[in-house]
Formats: sequence, C-alpha cells, structure tokens
Amino acid sequence: MSWSIHSKQLDITGLLNEESLFFTGNGYVGVRGNFEEGAPKGAGTIRGTYLNAFHDITDIAYGEKLFGFPETQQKLVNIIDAQTVRLYFGEGKEKEAFSLFDGEVLEYDRYLHMDRGVSERVIRWRSPMGKEVRVSFKRMASFIHPELFLQEITIEPISFFGKAELVAVTEGDVSNFTDPNDPRVGSGHAKLLAVSGSSIDNGVAGVEVIASRSRLKAACAVVCELSVQHSRKDVEHTKAIESTFVFELDGKAVFLKKNVYTDTLRHGNSPLRKGFELAEQLRSCSFAEAEQKQKEYLNDFWRFADVEIKGDEKLQEGIRFNLYHLLQSAGRDRYSNIAAKGLSGEGYEGHYFWDTEIYMIPVFLMTNPELAKKLLLYRYSILDAARARAKEMGHRQGALFPWRTISGPECSSYYPAGTAQYHISADIAYSYIQYYLVTKDIGFLKECGAEVLIETARLWIDTGHYHNGQFKIDAVTGPDEYTCIVNNNYYTNVMARYNLRWAVKAVAILAAEAPQVMKELEERLGLEPEETEKWIKASEAMYLPYDEELNINPQDDTFLQKAVWDFEQTPNDHYPLLLHYHPLTLYRYQVCKQADTVLAHFLLEDEQDASVIKSSYDYYEKVTTHDSSLSSCVFSIMAAKTGNMEKAYDYFIETSRLDLDNTHGNTKDGLHMANMGGTWMAIVHGFAGLRVKESGLSFAPAIPQQWEGYQFSIQYEGRHVEVMIDSSSARFSLISGPELVFHIYGNPYTLGEPGLEVPLIR
Amino acid sequence: MSWSIHSKQLDITGLLNEESLFFTGNGYVGVRGNFEEGAPKGAGTIRGTYLNAFHDITDIAYGEKLFGFPETQQKLVNIIDAQTVRLYFGEGKEKEAFSLFDGEVLEYDRYLHMDRGVSERVIRWRSPMGKEVRVSFKRMASFIHPELFLQEITIEPISFFGKAELVAVTEGDVSNFTDPNDPRVGSGHAKLLAVSGSSIDNGVAGVEVIASRSRLKAACAVVCELSVQHSRKDVEHTKAIESTFVFELDGKAVFLKKNVYTDTLRHGNSPLRKGFELAEQLRSCSFAEAEQKQKEYLNDFWRFADVEIKGDEKLQEGIRFNLYHLLQSAGRDRYSNIAAKGLSGEGYEGHYFWDTEIYMIPVFLMTNPELAKKLLLYRYSILDAARARAKEMGHRQGALFPWRTISGPECSSYYPAGTAQYHISADIAYSYIQYYLVTKDIGFLKECGAEVLIETARLWIDTGHYHNGQFKIDAVTGPDEYTCIVNNNYYTNVMARYNLRWAVKAVAILAAEAPQVMKELEERLGLEPEETEKWIKASEAMYLPYDEELNINPQDDTFLQKAVWDFEQTPNDHYPLLLHYHPLTLYRYQVCKQADTVLAHFLLEDEQDASVIKSSYDYYEKVTTHDSSLSSCVFSIMAAKTGNMEKAYDYFIETSRLDLDNTHGNTKDGLHMANMGGTWMAIVHGFAGLRVKESGLSFAPAIPQQWEGYQFSIQYEGRHVEVMIDSSSARFSLISGPELVFHIYGNPYTLGEPGLEVPLIR
Repeated sequence: MSWSIHSKQLDITGLLNEESLFFTGNGYVGVRGNFEEGAPKGAGTIRGTYLNAFHDITDIAYGEKLFGFPETQQKLVNIIDAQTVRLYFGEGKEKEAFSLFDGEVLEYDRYLHMDRGVSERVIRWRSPMGKEVRVSFKRMASFIHPELFLQEITIEPISFFGKAELVAVTEGDVSNFTDPNDPRVGSGHAKLLAVSGSSIDNGVAGVEVIASRSRLKAACAVVCELSVQHSRKDVEHTKAIESTFVFELDGKAVFLKKNVYTDTLRHGNSPLRKGFELAEQLRSCSFAEAEQKQKEYLNDFWRFADVEIKGDEKLQEGIRFNLYHLLQSAGRDRYSNIAAKGLSGEGYEGHYFWDTEIYMIPVFLMTNPELAKKLLLYRYSILDAARARAKEMGHRQGALFPWRTISGPECSSYYPAGTAQYHISADIAYSYIQYYLVTKDIGFLKECGAEVLIETARLWIDTGHYHNGQFKIDAVTGPDEYTCIVNNNYYTNVMARYNLRWAVKAVAILAAEAPQVMKELEERLGLEPEETEKWIKASEAMYLPYDEELNINPQDDTFLQKAVWDFEQTPNDHYPLLLHYHPLTLYRYQVCKQADTVLAHFLLEDEQDASVIKSSYDYYEKVTTHDSSLSSCVFSIMAAKTGNMEKAYDYFIETSRLDLDNTHGNTKDGLHMANMGGTWMAIVHGFAGLRVKESGLSFAPAIPQQWEGYQFSIQYEGRHVEVMIDSSSARFSLISGPELVFHIYGNPYTLGEPGLEVPLIR
Repeated sequence: MSWSIHSKQLDITGLLNEESLFFTGNGYVGVRGNFEEGAPKGAGTIRGTYLNAFHDITDIAYGEKLFGFPETQQKLVNIIDAQTVRLYFGEGKEKEAFSLFDGEVLEYDRYLHMDRGVSERVIRWRSPMGKEVRVSFKRMASFIHPELFLQEITIEPISFFGKAELVAVTEGDVSNFTDPNDPRVGSGHAKLLAVSGSSIDNGVAGVEVIASRSRLKAACAVVCELSVQHSRKDVEHTKAIESTFVFELDGKAVFLKKNVYTDTLRHGNSPLRKGFELAEQLRSCSFAEAEQKQKEYLNDFWRFADVEIKGDEKLQEGIRFNLYHLLQSAGRDRYSNIAAKGLSGEGYEGHYFWDTEIYMIPVFLMTNPELAKKLLLYRYSILDAARARAKEMGHRQGALFPWRTISGPECSSYYPAGTAQYHISADIAYSYIQYYLVTKDIGFLKECGAEVLIETARLWIDTGHYHNGQFKIDAVTGPDEYTCIVNNNYYTNVMARYNLRWAVKAVAILAAEAPQVMKELEERLGLEPEETEKWIKASEAMYLPYDEELNINPQDDTFLQKAVWDFEQTPNDHYPLLLHYHPLTLYRYQVCKQADTVLAHFLLEDEQDASVIKSSYDYYEKVTTHDSSLSSCVFSIMAAKTGNMEKAYDYFIETSRLDLDNTHGNTKDGLHMANMGGTWMAIVHGFAGLRVKESGLSFAPAIPQQWEGYQFSIQYEGRHVEVMIDSSSARFSLISGPELVFHIYGNPYTLGEPGLEVPLIR
C-alpha cells in the first residue's frame, strides 16, 4: 500500500493547489509547498509560512455597525519566508538561474511521504543554454522539535560541471495574500508585519518581525551547511539576510538549511534570541537523523490512526492524505487549535471554528487522545473570552464561545451565520464529554472539563425560556447556514440538553470523586446549589421539535412551513447557492447548506427512535445541497446507519478526495480540514458504526460492496483495539490493555486476548 | 396665534440644533441655519447646503460580503457654500471681524417666519474694541424659483461710524460632515466634490463642482448688490470666489446676495451656464418682491395645511413648525422625494425611506394633493430600478423597492433591517391607492398608478407561497426593527393583501375607463389574464396571524412564543435599546422598537374587528419602546381610535415638539421628518378620526380635554372642507366644491353650503 502522494508532472496552472496539497507542517509551523527557487511574477503562487495562532489584528468594516459587532478581527500572518533558496549554474555570461519556468523540465517527481513526514521534489532540468542537472529538494517540519523546519537540497551534475551558486534567503518583507474578488480569502490588510531586528551570529542568520497591531513578534534563525568545499558570504539587507554559497559542482552536493521559528506566544519576549539558542542546540542535527526521528513519531501515529482499505488504491491514498494533514495542522499548545484550513493556507484567516470539535477531535479522540486533550485545553484557555462575549451579548451568566477566533475574541462579522451559531458552545461541551467518555480522565474533568460544562450550561439557562412548560431557545442559527436566526433549532436544543445533563453529571462526579475540588470550583464560579436544579429542569423540559405527520424532527419551529426550494429550476452553475442568491432568498425556502438535524441524529442518536432518524434523513437529503464541505461525511455516516450502504459510499467518495481532486475549486486557499476528519468518521463511525456513549463502546460493522476489506485501530480507556472488516465478518483484536466489554450490533461481547470474530449482518 | 419660531438667546452649545431648526429650504435647495459670518474652529457647527437628490457614490464595506449586498451607496452631497458673508468694521489696526464668538452680543433674536417663508437673525453687537452695530440677516429659499436662495444683510451703525467691509464668498471647497463615533451620520467619505469650473461674468460670480463618482455637477451663480456707495473687488481663488465690498458705514446699508443653484439632474450638462442665465433673469428681483411672492405661496399652503389649536401655544408652535419643514423638504420633481432628515442635514445620507409614503404623503394628500402626486411620481421614476432589484433578489417578476435610496439602487447595508423590509413596496402601493381614493385621478392611474400596483402585486405572488391552503410570506421584516426576518408578519401580509386587491381593481378600472391604455399596458408588461386570477386567489387566501386566546394579531408566526423583554431590569440609560444590545439579543424577545401591527390596524382598520384592534393595541403597547421616532404618532392615533384620549394626548405631545425640544438628542443631524408628518396625522386621523376609504370619507371627532378647540382643512375630490372641533361639537364647512356625502361616527351626512354641526360623542 502506498504511503506517498506522487505528482508526476509539473502543472503550472495547478501550482496553487499543489502548494496546499504538499504543504509541510507540524501543528506549530506550516510552510506551503512553494518552490525554493521561486516563481516568476504572475505565475499564480501564494508563498506562505505560518505559525499556528500567530496573528495580527485588522479592522472590520461595516456599512451599519450595530452594538456588539466585533470591531476588529484576528488574522493569521504570513511570516518570515525561509523557504527561498536560489540556485545558479555557470559564471559570467553563462550564469543561469535554476527555474522550472525556464529551460526544460526533463523529469519532475513530487512526493509527500506520509510514513516519514518528508516532502520531496526531484527534478532533472536542462537550462536554456543546455546545462543539465538533477536537483532534489526535501523538506520537513519536525514533529519532535516543533520550531524546526528543515530543507535539504541535493544537486547532481548531469551534463554540467562547473561553478555553482546557492543563495539562501531569510526574508522578513512578506505580505499576506489578498484577492479582491473572493471575500473568503480576505481583501486588503496584506501588509501586517515589520522587521524588528536581524543579525548574523556565528554563522546563524536571524530575522525578527513584529505584527503591526497585535505586537506579537516572530523570528527565524537559520543554520546552513553545504557538503562540499565552498565560499560563503552573508549580506544583511534591511529586511532580509542572504547567504551566498559558491562552489564547484563536480559531484553530488548537499545543502542543508535548518530554519528555527519562534514567537512571543511560546518563546517569551525575545524570540530572536531564543531562536539563536535553539539553532545552536540543533546545529549538530543532520537531516537523516531528523528524518529517522520523524519516522518513529509517525510510526506511533499511524499505529493507531492508519486506516487500510483493501481494493481501492485511490481511496486509500485519500484517507491517509487526509489524516496526515490533520496531524500536520493540529496545534499542540494552549494558544493554538486547528484552523479551518489547517496550516496550509490563509483561507478563513486562520480562524478556529466548531469544525475542530465536531469533525476533527473525533479522529484524535480515538487515535491520539493526548492530542485531543491539547485541543480541548486551547478552548479552556479562551474560556474567559467566552464569558466576556456572553456578557457583551446581553447574558447575565455563562460562556458564549466565539464562532471564529484565534485567541478568543469573536471574529465573525456576519452574525446570522456567525455569532448566532450558539451551538458552538454545546459542540465544545460535547467534545469535553466525549473526551471523558473515551478516557475517563477525571483529572482533566477537575482541571477544566467541569468548568467548561458549567459555564456553557449557564449560557443555555440564560438564553432559553419556558413557554407552555417547555424550555425553548430562540434566535439562534444551527449548523445549516442557509437557515439563520430561528427558534428552537433541533440541533441546538438537543445539544444544549446534552450539555445541561452533563453539567449536572460533572458536578456529581466531582462531588463524589473530588469534593474539595468541587468546593473550590463552586466558590470560584459562585455556583449556587439551585443552579443544578435549573439545569435538570431545563434539560427535562427541553423542547425538541417533532412533526407527527412526517415523523421527523423539523429543523426549527418554522422550517416545514416554508416552501421547498425549486431545485428543478436551479441551474447547475448556480451552486453553491450562496454565491448566487441573497441570504434572504435562501432563508425563505426549505433548503439546507449542510447536515443539521441529520448531524444531531448522529451525535445524539438515542434522543430519537430509529424511524424518526430514518424519516428525517430521507426528508433532509432532498433539501440539502452539501454546499458546505462539512455535510457529505455526515450524510455518509447516517446513510450507513440507516442501512443504505450505496449512498453511504457515494457520500464517502465525495469526502475522501475533496482536496486531492480539488472538487470544491478552492484548495489553493488551503485544505478543508473538517472534511478530512469527516473521511475517517465516515469509515469508523459510518461503515464500522462505532459509537462511544456513557453505556460504553459499540460497533455495527458493515462494508461497502466495492471494498474487499478495511481495517483501523482505536484507543479506548487505555486499550489498543484493532478492527478488521471484510465482506463477511468483523474481527476485533485487543492489541494492548485490559479486557473490553462492548457491544456489536447491540449484543454484548467481551474482547480479550484471543480476539473476536463476528459475521456481518448488515 | 404666532407664526414665528423665536430664539431669544444665543446658545453656543445648542448651535448645531438651531442649524437644523432654522434651516431654509424649498424642496430643491436646503441651507442649514449656519451663521453667514462663520464660526471659529471647534465651535461645533455643521455647515451645509444641499440640493435634493444631488448625490455622490461611496463604497460600502462589509466584513463578509454576500451575494446581493449593495456594493455602493448614494450619499447626499454638501455642495457649494454661498452662505458665507464676512463683515469687518474699521480699518488698519482698528479693523475687526464681526463674530458672535468675540466681543459682546447685546441683543440676539432669531426667527423662522413660517407665514412668509423667511428666516431672520437680528443682532446688536459690540466689538472687542467697542464698536457697536446692529446687523440683521434675512434668508429665503424661494418657493417660486426653486434655484434661488436669497440673503439680505442690513447693517446699521449704533456707536460705530466708519469704514466697513463685506466679503461675500462662493466656496467650492466643501466636505461632508463625518463623526467617527456615530454610525448614523456616516464616517469617512467626507470629501466628495471637486471644483470643475468658476468664472466672474458681468458681476455674477459662478462656481461649478463635480461629484467624484456620480459625476453629477452642481453650480452656484451669485449676484450681489449693496445699497450704498462702495468699491468692489472680485478675486477668483482656485476653489472659491470672493467679492469684497468696501463702504462708509454712516447709515443703514443693505446687502443683497442672490444665489442661484443648478445641477445636471435638472439643468442639463452645463449647470454653471444655466446658472448664469437664471441669475440674469433674476437680477432685477428685489428681496421685498421675492418675499411678497413667498408670502402668497405660503398663504395658499396654509389655507389648507394649517392646524389651529386653541389653548396651547407650545403645541400650536410645534404643529406649524413641523408642517412648515415638511413643505421646505418635499421634492417637487421626479428626481427627488423627502429625505428622512429633509434638507436640514446629512443624517441617513439624505436617503428616502418608507417614511414618505406612510408618514408624510398623508399630510400632503389631504392638504396639497398636487405635491403628493409629485412625490408619487418620484417612485414611478425608480420603478425600473425596483424591477432590477427584484431580479437580483431572486424573484422572477415584480418590483422590490429599495429600503433606502436616492436615485433607485438599494443603499441599505444591513439587510435584516433594510432590504428585508419588503413592506415598503406595499407601502408605496398603499400610497398610490390612497391618492386615487382622495383624488379619483384616473389620469394618474393610467400614467403610473396601475403599473406600480401591478408590479408590486407581482412581487407578492413571487415572494409568497401556499401552505395548507393559505398564502404565506416568509423571511421578511415588518416595520418593527427589533424583530427581523420573520414569517408572516401581520403588517406585511395585510398590506400585501391590500396591494393585491387593488392591483385587481386598478386593472378593472382601466379596462372599463381606458381599455386602450389597459391593452397597451398589458402588452408592455406582458400581463397574462391569469395573473389577476392569481392576485385574487392569493389575496383571498392571505394568511393573517390571529391568536384566539389573546384575541390579537400576533406580529408574526413566532412573536408570541418568545419571552417578553425584561423591562423592569432594563436601566433607563439603556434606551434606545439598539445602542446597548446586540440585534440577536433584541430578536430573542418580545420587544418592539415601534408600531407594527398597531400601524397596520390604523392603515387598514377594516381588516379586523374593533375588539382585536383594541386588544392588540393594549398588548403591543406593553412591549413597545418607541425607540423609533415613527412610533408615538401611530400609538396616538390608535389610542384615540380605541377611546383613550389621555394616552392619545400623551403620545401626541411626544411627537409635536420632538425636534423643537430635541427630545431624541440628534436634531443636530437633521429634523425627524416622518414624525413631523405624524403630528398632523395624530390630530387629523387621530383626534378628528379622519379616514379615506373606497366607501368615502369619514370622521370620528374627539378632543383632548386639555384643548379648547382645534381646526384644520382638507382637500377631497376637489373640495375644500374646513373642520372646527371644540369641547362639545364638530363643525364642518364646505369652503369650495360640490356637496359631500360622508360619515361622522358611522352615520351618513351631506355637507352643503350651510355647513354642519355634530355634537361630540366621544
């Protein structure tokens, strides 16, 4: 089975997409797959290097600014460019710059090696004057040393032997990408950084930049090595440092560039100094050594995360690709999370959304719970900002998490499909609950979990109200962004109910297991005994819309009374609808951008009986456009649950290669991270039917008829369980950990050392 | 009874308000009541001259711009300043500039003479060096010659006799007012004009300016005269012309400045040349002569418009003041209408709203139907833009009028309380219908009325849909801007029904009275015979929300299910709520900014029986904040209708002196024109109970106990009827026109030559 993505042909028009697909990251630093040697002006490239959560602040403009509209926005900053290494062959009038846009590209192979965390570009090139060389570029963002981005360039003569020159640049004069024609990538605000310092010390070149309004600083300290005899010259420009290496190319020459990124969030007030320190520590580290450690790290990762699909090489490629990029993008500290586009581009300004909790944490939760915990810690770190936002939004208590943010403040400027999506607070609570169910980590519940559950429960109490004895939540937007500001969105209400119930449970667990901690928490939060009573009462009285005639859960109080969108009269080129219709037009009809009630039925399947879930699926499928990349995976899961494996497979196909095949047409702006998590979910939660509930773990295995078999692993309460499913049976193996009592197709089983095989019944 | 507003004391802090209150206009030109001699920097003045509908175009910024959001906005432009006349007394080192901010103001009287259309400022002033003079300023915007703005300055020596200098400025270097802290007056976009030409010809000084993006041009040609012997010097600066007059002040000196304004909308491509022509024609016109004609014009106006209130001088002042400013602001050509602030300031960018149709046209309709017709013609002139907007908003047919505009395009940037207010199209239709009912002007129905009714009816057919046999209209906002984007807003639905019914009637009237015209119209509009069937069916099936338990019309489908706003816990300084709460917070509760269902019950009182109207009034009164200035007048009318004269009077008080007493705190930005119409409506429709329906005219006279009596006139189908009401009876006199059959308290009467007296029964 292949562990590499392989691009065999240079496609200049597809350059932007490849820059996203071949990006290199480790959760802290992300470098787009740009060419070291650069590209000519107008070649259509977005040259970018990002540090997770490193942002500047820009103004938000409104035609009419109303109370509580955020005045500023945070924006991921494109920082110091250390990718650039220019190559020259020959001297005097014969000197030619290496460029894929000149001369002749005789061979071109580009790889993303997902088993060892390295990307590679191998080129055989003939210059316009006929010099033929082979140049290969390897790059790696170290999972071991998050600050470290390495590049190795190997140059081999073919027809050309002679003077060669290599210019390594550390450039502080960078801008963010803007496209005045696409609001999704932001306009204006290109120039966010100023160079605040640079120096060359003991062969280490360092540049420091400062973001103009956040005043955050970042630095890059660079160590270069060349394997052959050479002369070196360092030149400090105002905003960049250039190190030029001149040598005789008469055999293989290997150039190593170690770029150490630091910033004030993680490295204190002098990131440049810290960068120099780290660079010194890493000076002796070779590329081979780093690659070896990288491989070990990835072995560990894939041991749990890998999904094997037998009988479909393309999908196999897709699922690994998606998981690998999730790993590359996930923040590992309390400042960072996973941006909508990961660290692969600037789309959505590098903001964090509910995508993390509902579409990405599930993967890590079952394969790498430590990483999931770090992502949850980030949310805890912005809890104070969420409390402040709740106040600003007129609530007397509770925490309202921002719809999009980097360091905590609400950054959404269109509130009907932004701030109004109150469900994000319940989504975050859900994620804390699921983490607890998978790990039973009471320590984390004490440290953060209970507090998050309490503050989000308080939000619902303050947002909702009683009407005819039922607890109702008005004026919110559910996940579906084609239906905004409604009363009693089923998804929101049912998730809020789960949130309230678990706030009660968390308080009970702590009161029993850690009474002192609970007491301190009560005091710190001013928690009154009657509050839990209120949560119980509200959760019991929670109104969940149900339509008897259709036997479905209406998406909200008025959804079913609206006219159904006229799909027949909608031209194909009018999708996604949001680019062709005013929001009011969309809000007027029954039409969904994405899974909403159907998603709620996945997340909380025990709230409704199977027939309601099935009828709802059928109903919403007819009115859903899947214009959001967060939709197909959910429909795949629920098609599998409701027994339609053909559809489940079709939806799965849409998720698995969305970016590899650029089916949404905007992969250039970055990868669709939530969808990438969704691919794994469609397999594990969809086909294999995994659920984790208070009652324990359960499966309902099935297999698409197109496949011979598939297998994956999960971690659960300290166990490693391997699952292999083929066309006739599902085999469960306990790789490590204590015996497991769980359910398959609703029947209890005990998984011990000998493993377990169960015939497929669906 | 007083016909003048009199300000007796110079209040520097109230300067801005007086600039609005004493503005001078004639529907075409509007000049704020600034001081001729100017004010020092930082004195807090908004110096402004406006031509109705003369606008530039500015960009609208959005954090997230979605499909159909207007990209640009129109904005009333502050144009050439011809107000400025600087005065100097003495010579050499003794020379002092006249200024109310220096020396001593010994007497100060400012008047707005509403009977003769002149404003006046009389000042006795002692200079810092002790020169004492009397200076009086008169100004007038001619109702006869709309282009003409006149100023007369009379200077009389008291203690000072000697050299005097007078500098008349025509300044093209002007900017719009901006206040970065108040979004209601716009920020940025201050500098919209460039000077495109200037010249001095035969003693006439002319300056022409061009708006940077609309490319509209405006010009001002100025003729000056001084009654005493003098020397004159004209200097042409880059952007201004200064004419300096030097003379001996040894007796009364009178200076006359005639400013002729022209623009490309009304005067062709060379407004400056046209200005010179008009200035020549008006050269011989004296101030006294102009004042005489102005008085005759106003006699005509007041003959029908005046309302006399016996027993309350303050209210008398208020009602006349309001009517006078309405007259000053109403556009009389197809390019212009009445801006939300009239021609008195730049608030709301000089845009036209539904305010005209629902709050201002009713006054003119009954007192000056010719003027009402001109206002309606303006709407007809933007019908094509409304058709285009309907297309853009996803409709296959019909006309959707813009929520705010100058020349037609939608200029609202917050669509939930902007474009979503679809009711404006029904409001405009309503106004056309009312015009027809008052005048029976079939000619106008043929020319414009039927077409407007047809195109708006088509909009409703395309917007609404059938659900369980009822015709429903989803995703609109009613008049109440604290409740946005709802389904089946009662106001919208009932107004749409009226619109549909009258489209059917208009087609029937034309088919009977002018079949050829109807045939041409059918062809031009592609009107299918089945369309009228659809209108009938939809109007019959129109769903009007009704709550049996409360016996009221719910404002919309979900209004009553929401929690009632917690008024008790709302601090007084948190009103208006919109400045202290996020819109989502407001939308979550039962809380109304203004009359909504209550307004519908006024406009279409026969749609519900009296008990529903009464219960609805009581219900909505409890949840309405009147944060909009469009609310109190409606509550006054409906309090009167439902028999609570105390409340009717209280609400009336709030409307009548809103600007004179600056009760909303923003009179500086301009006068609240809709409220000014509302004052008249509260008297005539409220206290006197006037209604005009298809069945004819009716009254239900009553009187607030605080009054001895009141009287007013109306025009109706060519008649002039005078109504006098005192504490015991109502007397009706037919001043001119044929006998009138009408209703009083529901009983039929015939009004002929002898008049009619009916005892009050409520």
